[in-house]
Amino acid sequence: MIGVFDSGIGGLTVVKELFRLLPEYRVLYFGDTARTPYGNKSEKTILRYAIQDTELLLEKGAQIIVVACNTASAVAAEELKRKFNVPIFEVITPAVKKAVAVSKNHRIGVIGTAATVKSGIYERLIKQNGRKFAIISKPCPLFVPLVEENWIKRPETKTIAKKYLQSLKISSIDSLILGCTHYPLLKEIIQVKIGRRIKLVDPAQETVLTIKEFLAAHPEIEKTLPKNQSHQFYLSDLTPKFQDIANRWLGKKIKLQLVEME
Amino acid sequence: MIGVFDSGIGGLTVVKELFRLLPEYRVLYFGDTARTPYGNKSEKTILRYAIQDTELLLEKGAQIIVVACNTASAVAAEELKRKFNVPIFEVITPAVKKAVAVSKNHRIGVIGTAATVKSGIYERLIKQNGRKFAIISKPCPLFVPLVEENWIKRPETKTIAKKYLQSLKISSIDSLILGCTHYPLLKEIIQVKIGRRIKLVDPAQETVLTIKEFLAAHPEIEKTLPKNQSHQFYLSDLTPKFQDIANRWLGKKIKLQLVEME
Repeated sequence: MIGVFDSGIGGLTVVKELFRLLPEYRVLYFGDTARTPYGNKSEKTILRYAIQDTELLLEKGAQIIVVACNTASAVAAEELKRKFNVPIFEVITPAVKKAVAVSKNHRIGVIGTAATVKSGIYERLIKQNGRKFAIISKPCPLFVPLVEENWIKRPETKTIAKKYLQSLKISSIDSLILGCTHYPLLKEIIQVKIGRRIKLVDPAQETVLTIKEFLAAHPEIEKTLPKNQSHQFYLSDLTPKFQDIANRWLGKKIKLQLVEME
Repeated sequence: MIGVFDSGIGGLTVVKELFRLLPEYRVLYFGDTARTPYGNKSEKTILRYAIQDTELLLEKGAQIIVVACNTASAVAAEELKRKFNVPIFEVITPAVKKAVAVSKNHRIGVIGTAATVKSGIYERLIKQNGRKFAIISKPCPLFVPLVEENWIKRPETKTIAKKYLQSLKISSIDSLILGCTHYPLLKEIIQVKIGRRIKLVDPAQETVLTIKEFLAAHPEIEKTLPKNQSHQFYLSDLTPKFQDIANRWLGKKIKLQLVEME
């Protein structure tokens, strides 16, 4: 199974891309809703949670791990790769690859949670492609609660987006990485406020394309993956709101199951 | 020691009132910042966390427990009182008492997190004072992240406050309970948007007044409480942001210590 974890429900944007681009494989999802969000927590705590999340997915039969959370990818993916002997994918490297490919003026914007921006990982990875690249980052901590409030098209969200994106807008970037799994839900507003000429990069999509390439190159792993639609969705806490958002995002009713983390 | 716990740093508004109204007693604070916030989680999970938080404070020597979090007060205080054999104070009953006393037209507004409003506890407790009371509630989930972003005087916060308070404003209430420990930080904006004639009730202040009365009535407990300023502040996660906010709210530099919860 393809195991996917996130700090909460944001990682369902990755599941949506898996359903679209790799529809034949069974998905095992874990969202740590009892401790969500990760983006406002320390690196040490995020790392501990990411290890526990990975162990849970492996116990439940995951053969591949996808860290669907930008914050956990930024802080914990390297350590997870050292610690666990399975293929581990994170959402940052594929997004960097895409941004570097599409940027013509070598000025790339990055938006994300406080923890992701603070980690500086996008800067580091983009600069590995040459010192000519300039990266302009901006934490947008209110975007996650706005999405979870479902204020996706509200005027208040537009005002906040305008405020957050102001400094990026005047910085001559030509591409912008949506460095948090929730942000693709605000794609329309972000595109309007940052300007139509800026290319938005969605890590969820790029990550699933990377997994697709990996499976094509590794038939010995690909053939062991179960190929049916019995997807499983686990959360460490259940509320009616999560069920609503999950159904709406994935466009169908899914069954969420509770799993205790402690 | 007076033990105080909260889902994060919001409970420092209660500590501030303790410092103001009961300055002689030693305070032991625990903020569950590794799992913050509680307001978007299920009752079952909030109850489990509240029991763990109380056990931690008791292990560290608390003789009195103050549940400084409205969400935990709403969901868990009754169970904590059954389970633990120490005086336990929550922030809801004192706020209800005050609101019932100040309301002249018997129409009381309540704002809080999704979990607090959903619990219906303010309605139930206010209605115990007579069926003449009408309660109009409104969850304001973005207020907590706005305060933690320190967007306390920003135009975006004013717009959101206006939106949230619209239905309350036209509902002829004459008093409004700030049913979340973060909300007193937005008192000015809330007062402007709801209208100057509405009396705001701050549960932190009312709770500390209740504790003061209790100690005056129970000298046998009062005399056992250590009376010096060696306050202790524990958090389950540490970030520089928490330190900033804590210093700013309490108006002095405090030492935050990490304690692991699992």
